[in-house]
Amino acid sequence: MKKVFVFVLTGCMLLSAPAQKIMGFTAPDAAKQLDWEKQFDGELKASAQDEYMRFLTSHPHHVGSPQGKANAEYMAALFRQWGYQVRIAEYQVLFPTPKLRQLEIAGNKNYKPKLKEAVLAADKTSGQLAEQLPPYNAYSADGDVTAELVFVNRGVPADYEELARRGVEVKGKIVIAKYGGSWRGIKPKVAAEHGAIGCIIYSDPADDGYAIGDTYPEGGYRPGDGVQRGSVMDMPVYPGDPLTPDRGATQEAQRLDRSEAPTIMKIPVLPISWEDALPLLQSLKGEVVPAGWRGALPITYHTGPSNVKVHLKLAFNWDIKPLYDVIAQLPGTEYPDEWVIAGNHHDGWVNGAADPISGMVAELETARAIGELVKKGYKPKRTLVFCAWDGEEPALLGSTEWTEDHQSELRQKAVAYINTDGNGRGFINAGGSHIFEPFFNEIIEQVTDPETGVSLKERKYAQTVVNADKTNRTKLMGNKYLKLGALGAGSDWGGFLQHLGISSLNLGFGGESEGDQYHSVYDSYDHFIRFIDPGFKYGVTLSKTSGRTLLRLANAAVLPVDFSSFYKTVNDYATEIKTQLEKTRTETEEETRMAKDQLFELARDPGKTYLAPAAKEPVPFLNWGSLENALVSLKNASEEFQQLYGNAPGLPADKQALLNAVLYKAERSLLQPDGLPRRPWYRHQVYAPGFYTGYGVKTLPGIREAVEQRYWKEAQENIERIAATLQAYTIQVKTAVGLLK
Amino acid sequence: MKKVFVFVLTGCMLLSAPAQKIMGFTAPDAAKQLDWEKQFDGELKASAQDEYMRFLTSHPHHVGSPQGKANAEYMAALFRQWGYQVRIAEYQVLFPTPKLRQLEIAGNKNYKPKLKEAVLAADKTSGQLAEQLPPYNAYSADGDVTAELVFVNRGVPADYEELARRGVEVKGKIVIAKYGGSWRGIKPKVAAEHGAIGCIIYSDPADDGYAIGDTYPEGGYRPGDGVQRGSVMDMPVYPGDPLTPDRGATQEAQRLDRSEAPTIMKIPVLPISWEDALPLLQSLKGEVVPAGWRGALPITYHTGPSNVKVHLKLAFNWDIKPLYDVIAQLPGTEYPDEWVIAGNHHDGWVNGAADPISGMVAELETARAIGELVKKGYKPKRTLVFCAWDGEEPALLGSTEWTEDHQSELRQKAVAYINTDGNGRGFINAGGSHIFEPFFNEIIEQVTDPETGVSLKERKYAQTVVNADKTNRTKLMGNKYLKLGALGAGSDWGGFLQHLGISSLNLGFGGESEGDQYHSVYDSYDHFIRFIDPGFKYGVTLSKTSGRTLLRLANAAVLPVDFSSFYKTVNDYATEIKTQLEKTRTETEEETRMAKDQLFELARDPGKTYLAPAAKEPVPFLNWGSLENALVSLKNASEEFQQLYGNAPGLPADKQALLNAVLYKAERSLLQPDGLPRRPWYRHQVYAPGFYTGYGVKTLPGIREAVEQRYWKEAQENIERIAATLQAYTIQVKTAVGLLK
Repeated sequence: MKKVFVFVLTGCMLLSAPAQKIMGFTAPDAAKQLDWEKQFDGELKASAQDEYMRFLTSHPHHVGSPQGKANAEYMAALFRQWGYQVRIAEYQVLFPTPKLRQLEIAGNKNYKPKLKEAVLAADKTSGQLAEQLPPYNAYSADGDVTAELVFVNRGVPADYEELARRGVEVKGKIVIAKYGGSWRGIKPKVAAEHGAIGCIIYSDPADDGYAIGDTYPEGGYRPGDGVQRGSVMDMPVYPGDPLTPDRGATQEAQRLDRSEAPTIMKIPVLPISWEDALPLLQSLKGEVVPAGWRGALPITYHTGPSNVKVHLKLAFNWDIKPLYDVIAQLPGTEYPDEWVIAGNHHDGWVNGAADPISGMVAELETARAIGELVKKGYKPKRTLVFCAWDGEEPALLGSTEWTEDHQSELRQKAVAYINTDGNGRGFINAGGSHIFEPFFNEIIEQVTDPETGVSLKERKYAQTVVNADKTNRTKLMGNKYLKLGALGAGSDWGGFLQHLGISSLNLGFGGESEGDQYHSVYDSYDHFIRFIDPGFKYGVTLSKTSGRTLLRLANAAVLPVDFSSFYKTVNDYATEIKTQLEKTRTETEEETRMAKDQLFELARDPGKTYLAPAAKEPVPFLNWGSLENALVSLKNASEEFQQLYGNAPGLPADKQALLNAVLYKAERSLLQPDGLPRRPWYRHQVYAPGFYTGYGVKTLPGIREAVEQRYWKEAQENIERIAATLQAYTIQVKTAVGLLK
Repeated sequence: MKKVFVFVLTGCMLLSAPAQKIMGFTAPDAAKQLDWEKQFDGELKASAQDEYMRFLTSHPHHVGSPQGKANAEYMAALFRQWGYQVRIAEYQVLFPTPKLRQLEIAGNKNYKPKLKEAVLAADKTSGQLAEQLPPYNAYSADGDVTAELVFVNRGVPADYEELARRGVEVKGKIVIAKYGGSWRGIKPKVAAEHGAIGCIIYSDPADDGYAIGDTYPEGGYRPGDGVQRGSVMDMPVYPGDPLTPDRGATQEAQRLDRSEAPTIMKIPVLPISWEDALPLLQSLKGEVVPAGWRGALPITYHTGPSNVKVHLKLAFNWDIKPLYDVIAQLPGTEYPDEWVIAGNHHDGWVNGAADPISGMVAELETARAIGELVKKGYKPKRTLVFCAWDGEEPALLGSTEWTEDHQSELRQKAVAYINTDGNGRGFINAGGSHIFEPFFNEIIEQVTDPETGVSLKERKYAQTVVNADKTNRTKLMGNKYLKLGALGAGSDWGGFLQHLGISSLNLGFGGESEGDQYHSVYDSYDHFIRFIDPGFKYGVTLSKTSGRTLLRLANAAVLPVDFSSFYKTVNDYATEIKTQLEKTRTETEEETRMAKDQLFELARDPGKTYLAPAAKEPVPFLNWGSLENALVSLKNASEEFQQLYGNAPGLPADKQALLNAVLYKAERSLLQPDGLPRRPWYRHQVYAPGFYTGYGVKTLPGIREAVEQRYWKEAQENIERIAATLQAYTIQVKTAVGLLK
């Protein structure tokens, strides 16, 4: 009875409400699509996600582990069962694992670091000791070093400037850095650039431990012995197997010798818990750190050097290990050679529940539900490809090798890549190619938040306004449009977006999870269902969100792109950099004057060393004309495109086919074949991970990083280069306009 | 030989440099004055300050202690020896001391709070146990209360709003608050307003302990058992003896019954160390606190309530104790009935080296050096009065009772009051009446910083620019003029400035001391000479600075005032309040709209209580016309005065005498006889301590606090009232202008 009532109500609403539009669909097709999406939602089961997760997290499933292979086979079997064509793509990659990890304080026999995480009764997989990878940083160098210790805060370049001003010498020392503030691989890289001979990274409780919330297992936050594993490969140079840049690491692939591989870290690096770090930090002498460097341990933090020597000895098994990427296809009925790709990784550092299985189970359930739709008659026009990557954790290995291996095919066929790494309770978070921004906004208007019953967009808007600084609130109020973030590094879109120019999105939820066990044994099923997404409500919501994205991309008559959004975003980036340049000019002038007037000398405590900042050359004026002209061309072409786009779904099919090819390949013209300065693998001229931030994205990186590094000649060259790139892109937009006329 | 050489050089410089001007002096008099000041500098001895401090800090010297009386007598003898006319003014005041202090966690026999500070071998006075006042809050109520505990952060009204939004009930509970963020007396006052029955205040190491620097005795910061004593009398209502408001607490004075005294705290309050606080904080349940509430203890801070009951029992000896104010006069040769007054307190909570003896020894040495000048022929035109106040710590007792007792004489004779409480290494800090701002700037240009050899002004400028936020630096650069801060509460100027309208200054140095032992047994001579001002370099510099201030005020032909500085400052205050009002209006409108749109409901974690902020009435528009008119009148009159002021030192003596009387009495016209709303003792309409901030000054308090409290009718009334006050002040300025013409 209740069901009928609901149906009648829904029927009335459908009749009385105006037909809902969807980008790229005609009105009748939109109605059908919406009906399929409703059925799709109906298929999604939290219990299924729970079941997948139980299996996938049942044992440690890192690269080369038995469970890793079992997981690939489990998922392949599921995809097959759901009607997909499946293969497991195998690659052979360099994946070091620890042979010896030794950390000592010279002359202190009482210092016995655990270098491991405790077995907890409340966490049933924490005791799988024989299968676990112990805490380590993958691609650390082997090494046996003994030296005084220096505390380098987050270990980014600005921290070393502060140490230099305090007269603290890093050369020949071992550094200890806090996790956070940059991608971890930046820390040893910058340490090595400054002459350090070893690097220790620890998790300060100020960042993800007791300062933030109750620790595991009472609460969800990182306990005193929790350690963050992770890669320290120099991925901002290139990700993937260090021995096979720009080619798939197949059995027969040509390989660099390990000694030549530029992305392997040059010094030994070890991650430790704060309990193991505390005696090291207590051994530091020298001045008290700047206020911003303090952590939450009950000590006075000092810069060092320590009054004792620290001994760090690391050795690794430098083995070649197999990767298992699961690739499941549902061929398109009209455009089988246009691929809409979904992906996430399946490998974890240990049992990896939140990272990556929370995203993987949403992907699996999306695929299952689509399989059910197909049984009911749904026909994807374009081919849907579901990928489960191996080896993301060490270096985006699986996705990078696969995209390198299939690069020519992907250049031809890939329409978009949708990634879903890591999911939890809370608010929608998304980043990606800005041509998808209005498309993404349309979707989040139509998916309901499971906790409040309003749309994802309404809820995100509420969060944004309520948490805004009061001074900034006025301009946020009333504007519910959600800007996409830009994608740097952090998950498997790198090969697609930054190497091959395939428009990408990354989707996930977060903000209400209670505690982070990132890359720890405690990122487990037991932790996940208590603190991250109890009942998989947001797992199902992620399936709804990414599922709609895939279904619409698969069946749109005309792909849902918006060049004006891209133009506006790039124009904002250019403005940001110009503003930054002017700020740098002012600050440089001021600093020069301050040094000349001896203000640094006069302001410091005469009892302490605190040098003036290193003198800097004046900032030249750059020529922006070519970029500004390119932006105006792009603006005009994009606006013309958007004016005509509404009619596109009604065009004849052959014209649509031509148009779609232009639309999804447009992003390729944002690549330059020789890539970014000093890192040719990164070809995209708009989005890249920062060379000195790692995860942190740098937009228009050729210009932005040159300005940040004060490479003025390079900045000017890259203005010209990006101007040319945008002009090439504008030609694609104009071609699309031509087809729309 | 060396001496002669220096003399010749100095002679050349005097000849070649243009004669230095001093405000209020003719050119020839300025040269003579500068010569006296040079001789004055030559008299000052660091070793003398050291000697005074050794004696004055040799035993605990709180109100009613033997050493307190001995110190008064010691100083009286010194002043006499230096040629001053000395008396010790005695008052009888209510000064409670602890009889019983008991703190327990119900059912936890292991919790044994120390409620005292350890004896340290490195600190030779820390073992004077029999003479020490134990840690307590003076004017706490007696009480015996048992209840659950709630953590209230700093215990200011905004903190209770946050607790209310989280559904945490304070009524009937005992609260625990961190020191800092407000004057301590505000914490129990606001707690009692919210129905709390007891209050515990502790020193979090984030504020003055290990988070900031190494703790005593290795470093200078507050150790784990360090406790901040202090008064919790409701001084924002009135300071001084609670039984004798507005009259001197002489033997025969009429007294309120203790039960009627409005300034005695209504609930029991106890200050404790973080070591004693830790188990209490660990007993708190409920939600994790907002990020801004966290301290530096190695725990997760929760709001509470606790799952156990806390028992707090306090009883005090409510005794009347004697105060000994030392008053030393050097009669003026020309204007004996114009008094230039210097003062600081001599009582400490325990051995009180930094607070107050560092300021006291600078005052003493200033007085000694002036005595030496007099022996050499120096003649102060005006009477110099040096005061050493007793009982500042409990409630500004000594200065308040003396100013109340001598109010009619002081109204007639007091030219200015210069206070020097607390001194250490570093940079000049000053606050006071803004008519003295250019005068103060002149002095800090002419006194040399002992560490760098540049003027105090240059060094302060360097500090300001170097430590400025980069976005704010541009407007600071090149502008060396130092704005005076406004005076709220905090030391003995209250009776002079805020009750009697005597223009005041507070001078001191700081910023390079290494650690705070504020109101602890460890604020000792041993601590001081290691961490606060080794070698008394800044003690001597404070003598130079305050000495010049006194000498110039004593001998200026025309007092060095600048009404335009006052006008500009008051005009800025009015602008600040208008801006604040508009901000409040916008925020109220936004918040109302946000509540209507349910944004608070949608943004919160549905698993937690987090109510929307309490609904607020819209902000009305106020009429500013009368105040704006008054400001314009003041501006015009002030500018005219400043144009004519340069000629004033050349006027005939009788005219100067009339003029000076107008100048130093002008500040009296900023008083209103019925004072501020709900606190008639505070008569000054421009400067007052905040009713809900305590130390924190509120300028134009009648308007500002009404706007902050959303008392719109009162705000409008106070606009009119302050407009009338400024018009009365302008009449004084015009009278001065008339005398200058």
